[in-house]
Formats: sequence, C-alpha cells, structure tokens
Amino acid sequence: MASSPRHSTHHPTLLLRRHYPNFCALAPLRPTRQLPSLPQQQLQQKQHVGHDPSPSEPTTAAASPATAAAAGALRVGIVGFGNFGQFIAGGIQRQGHAVLATSRSDYSGYCARHGIRFFATADELCEAGPDVLLVCSSILSTEAVVRAIPFRKLRPGTLVADVLSVKQFPRNLLLEILPPGFGIVCTHPMFGPESGKHGWSGLPFVYDKVRVAKEGDQAAKCEQFLSIFEREGCRMVEMLCEEHDRYAAGSQFITHTIGRILSQLNLESTPINTKGYETLLQLTKNTISDSFDLYYGLFMYNVNATEQIDNLDRAFEKVKQMLYGRLHNVLRKQIEERVPIP
Amino acid sequence: MASSPRHSTHHPTLLLRRHYPNFCALAPLRPTRQLPSLPQQQLQQKQHVGHDPSPSEPTTAAASPATAAAAGALRVGIVGFGNFGQFIAGGIQRQGHAVLATSRSDYSGYCARHGIRFFATADELCEAGPDVLLVCSSILSTEAVVRAIPFRKLRPGTLVADVLSVKQFPRNLLLEILPPGFGIVCTHPMFGPESGKHGWSGLPFVYDKVRVAKEGDQAAKCEQFLSIFEREGCRMVEMLCEEHDRYAAGSQFITHTIGRILSQLNLESTPINTKGYETLLQLTKNTISDSFDLYYGLFMYNVNATEQIDNLDRAFEKVKQMLYGRLHNVLRKQIEERVPIP
Repeated sequence: MASSPRHSTHHPTLLLRRHYPNFCALAPLRPTRQLPSLPQQQLQQKQHVGHDPSPSEPTTAAASPATAAAAGALRVGIVGFGNFGQFIAGGIQRQGHAVLATSRSDYSGYCARHGIRFFATADELCEAGPDVLLVCSSILSTEAVVRAIPFRKLRPGTLVADVLSVKQFPRNLLLEILPPGFGIVCTHPMFGPESGKHGWSGLPFVYDKVRVAKEGDQAAKCEQFLSIFEREGCRMVEMLCEEHDRYAAGSQFITHTIGRILSQLNLESTPINTKGYETLLQLTKNTISDSFDLYYGLFMYNVNATEQIDNLDRAFEKVKQMLYGRLHNVLRKQIEERVPIP
Repeated sequence: MASSPRHSTHHPTLLLRRHYPNFCALAPLRPTRQLPSLPQQQLQQKQHVGHDPSPSEPTTAAASPATAAAAGALRVGIVGFGNFGQFIAGGIQRQGHAVLATSRSDYSGYCARHGIRFFATADELCEAGPDVLLVCSSILSTEAVVRAIPFRKLRPGTLVADVLSVKQFPRNLLLEILPPGFGIVCTHPMFGPESGKHGWSGLPFVYDKVRVAKEGDQAAKCEQFLSIFEREGCRMVEMLCEEHDRYAAGSQFITHTIGRILSQLNLESTPINTKGYETLLQLTKNTISDSFDLYYGLFMYNVNATEQIDNLDRAFEKVKQMLYGRLHNVLRKQIEERVPIP
C-alpha cells in the first residue's frame, strides 16, 4: 500500500516535504545585528593545518600532525563532505581548528591525507562530540540529511550551522528539527572552490545567528566559528535569512539564470569579441561549472525565485515590444503616407 | 498627393528605403584577405595634432597650428560629427592627418578649438576635396545622409569609408550610390569614447576593402587610412561585411540585448553581490550609456538579428522548461506514489 500524504511526511524519502518548500514561510523581520567583535580570549593563533586539538580523543587520521592541542580550538564536524565541504574544511584547518567529517561517499583516503578524522556514519561522528556540526549537503538533499542526523548523540547545546545558497529553508528546517537547547547559525559563504581558489579575502560571507543561547559557551563557540571566516578575510554580512533570500533572488539567481540561458545558446568566441561579450562568455563558463542541481535548488528553495523568473520574462517581452513596436510604427507611418487617411 | 512607393524611393525623407533593409542582401563570400603591410613611403611620422597638411588650402580654423604640411598626409573629411565622429577624429589627428568636418549641428566652436576645419554643408566639405570621406552618421540616418552628399563635387576616385556597427547595409548602399570610380572601404571600430578612452590598443577594428582600384593612388590612400587605426594599436581584422554581420549578431547584438533586458529589471547593487552579478551590473550600465537608436539600428540593419532574438527566446523557454518540467516530474511522482497506477 502506498503511504498517504500524511504518512509520507515521516517517510524516510520525504518526497512531499522535501519538494514543497513549506519551510520558507517568511520569518518576521528582526533588526539587523551589528557585526560582533570577537572576544579576545577566543581568538586562536594560526595552528598547523590538520591537528586535532581534542586531548581526550587521539586522532586516527594517519597524516594528522602531532602538534599539541590548542586550548579552546574548535572541533567542527562536517556532514556532507563533497567538493564544497572539503573546500570549507581547508579554511577551518587554516584557522587552527580540527575537522571531523562524514559523508555518503567514502572520503577516508582524502581525510587521511589532510589530517581529518573521517567517520563512516553520522552516528559515529555525533558520538565523537564536535563543538559545531556543519551541514554541507546540497540544497536538494539537505532535508533528508538533516532528518537522518542522530542529534540526541551530540553533546547538549551543540551549535549547528549550514552553508546553503538559500537561507529561509534551512533556518525553518533546523528550527523544526533541532532539540531546543541546540544553537543555530545559518550561513552562506558566497564563494566556492573556483572563485575562492586564491583566498577568501573580500568575498562575502552572510550569516544569521538564528538561535544562540546567551548562557553557557554557545555564544562564544558561535563567535569562534564565525571568526574562521572573518580571519580568512571574508566580508562578513550579518543578515536575516529572509533578507538574504530576497537579495539573492534578485542578484545571484538572476545571474545564474542569465548564465543558463546563454549556455543554451552555445555562444562561441568570435574574431571580433567586444569586452561586454567576453564577460558573457566568462559568465556562461562559470555557470555551467556549477551543477544544474544547484541552480534547481536556488529556484526551488527560494520563495522569491519564481517572481524573478517572471520579472525576467516581462523584461524580455518589453525589449521585444520596443523593437517590434517601433518597426510596426514605421510601417504604419509608411502605409499612411502611401494611402493618406482622408 | 502622397508619393507612391516607387517615387518615395527618390524622396528626400526616403522612408520606405531607409526602413526596409533591402541593402542587406547577402554578398557572395570572398576569401578573407591577408592584412596588408603598409607601404613605407606612406607611413607618416606623428604630427602635431590638428595641422592641415594641404598646401593649397590655407586653414581657416582659428586654433590650427601653423606647422608645415607633411607631404602625403591625408585630408579626411568627416560627415556627421557627433560624439563618435569627434572620437575618431582624435585618432586621425594623432596620426598626423588633417580632419575636415561637417554635421547637421554646428560644431564650428569645437572644431576651432581642436584644429579642425568645419564646414556648414556637405557641399562645401566636398568642394574642399578631401582624400577620404568618412561617414560617421548613426545607423538610422545613414541612408539619408549618404544620399544627400554631392559626390560629383568630390575629386574623382575619392575613397569613401563608414564606421557603422552593421556592415552589409552601408556596403550595399555605397555600392549603389557612389560613382563607379570611387573607392569603398567599410569599417567597424569596435570601441567608442567609453571603451577606448585609455587608448585603442588591442581593440578590434574590422574592415572590408569593398572596392579599391589598383590603378592610381586609391590603394595607397586606403592603406594610409587603415594605418591610422593600425598605428593606434587596434587589432586589425579584415573580414567580409557579411561575415561581420553574422559574427556581430551572435556576439555584440546578443550582449546589447542582455544589457537591455537587464536594464528593464532595474537591478540594484546589494550588500551580497557576487562577482558574476557585478559583471551584469556593469554590462547594464554600459548598455544604457549607448542610445536606444544604436540598439534599434543593430536590430533593424543586421539581417541576422531577428534570428538571434528568436534563439534567445528559445533558450529562455528551454531554461524555464527545465525548471518547471522537473517540478512537474516531482509532483507527478508523488501523485503516482499516493495513487498507485494499477
């Protein structure tokens, strides 16, 4: 018997919930916070890449250096360790923090070479008790991935973060699923392995401290986590998830859409490229280096995307109307001159 | 009585001929020529800006320097002396040649300050006997401008050139109108006052020596004229007018169209601009700094433009279909799961 819609909500594949972005209901607007200054005692000096500063858990990664653990360094568990997870792990390690990783695929070889502890399952990763759990799955798989995490095995009050290119969806998902004491910080590093390959300096990093407890060390851990990106040189932008999605639909999603349209045209370099055309060729190249799944995720999980597609549709119609409308006016004028209206 | 279509062809306003791009019939493909080497005796050393090297015609421009005329320097008459004509005049003068100008508007003040002889009418300019007559009108006004030039007053064998962003149209127009002995070179400097403000080095200059007599000095004058752009550093691209229009529709016209579409969206800078979005903002800014008349000219006078609008239309439809089609597939799958097909 097929599951009813009600039951399918709790079904492991979660099709109905995953594909209806019902987590995107607009959050009430809160005043934008000031960029917090980092508490001095939390700042870490740069450590050797790949150390595991946990004194209680000796590293199992073969390549992990034997440097002494830095007091107060974070242990960041990454769930989903594809291209982007590995890319972010680099920055975390450069800032002297330890990375623990798990993924559907087996990245144990990669992790061994990079001084990262790899866990075959999210269960084992959670049992290792990371300070911060960073979800680095694709937009389309995030709900299934998050629902499969055994949060009860994490230490109480663990900070959970995400890096998706949409923000209301993970915000609402995490608020629904996480145990009450857990902290939530939603982030969007607006760069990737390609645009960030020469360093992260000046690149925008958007974040929203959705739920961070004032008591205990959650706030300090959150500042420490954000300091990774700040100290890598990112332009830190604190912004509500709702604001992010509104801005991103009007900028990033429009850019991806233009790139996708141009890629359909199979543009080629000509002997007479103008500078403007060169930028379009570059945009097309960058766009198709991202997966279509990412683009579909930007469309599907940002409530503002459909509106932007409609805006683009209208803009194109308007331009065609300006061209063909003027043509029509010219022809009509000629007809009137030939057959003067009495 | 209104003029009949047949008569209106010879009517000064020339509406029917001007707005039907019937000059765009495809020219038969000729083999692309090698970039000619400049005859050494024709090369000019750089002269003082604004001199008039004609010994027989003392300059009347107040600011014209009194340097001696350089033997063999060109006297280039420019018809249409707006922004672009003035911009091109700068390069002609930098290369030691003299500029004579005429225009609908009175640019006598500007010309006096820049050592250029200004003529109130095309008649007077033609009587002054320039070596090269360069048409710098807008695409939309070119036919009327060219038909109004009293070619009989020019010296026999004068070289006539244009600088339009479309090329088959002026090629066919000049072939139809010019007296048989006149030379024709169609050019497209693919830059303007904005993109060429820091010099013309590396910027593409397209040309087609449509009709240049081997006898007499026409070929030499043509090389000398082209050397202006070569010596300014342009990337010289010899190309048939037909080829130019095919390439330009797929690159320059597409770029202008994307810019026009984006300008309809009223894009704004956001606190979270990606690099790709920044390039689109810049493209929009550059596009609207050009007149809509230029864009309309690219559309109206390039036979390949309509096809490119159609391609863009199809590409956008395809992207929408990929997004909404996938959405539809997901929903259908859910319906099938809920109500299994027997």
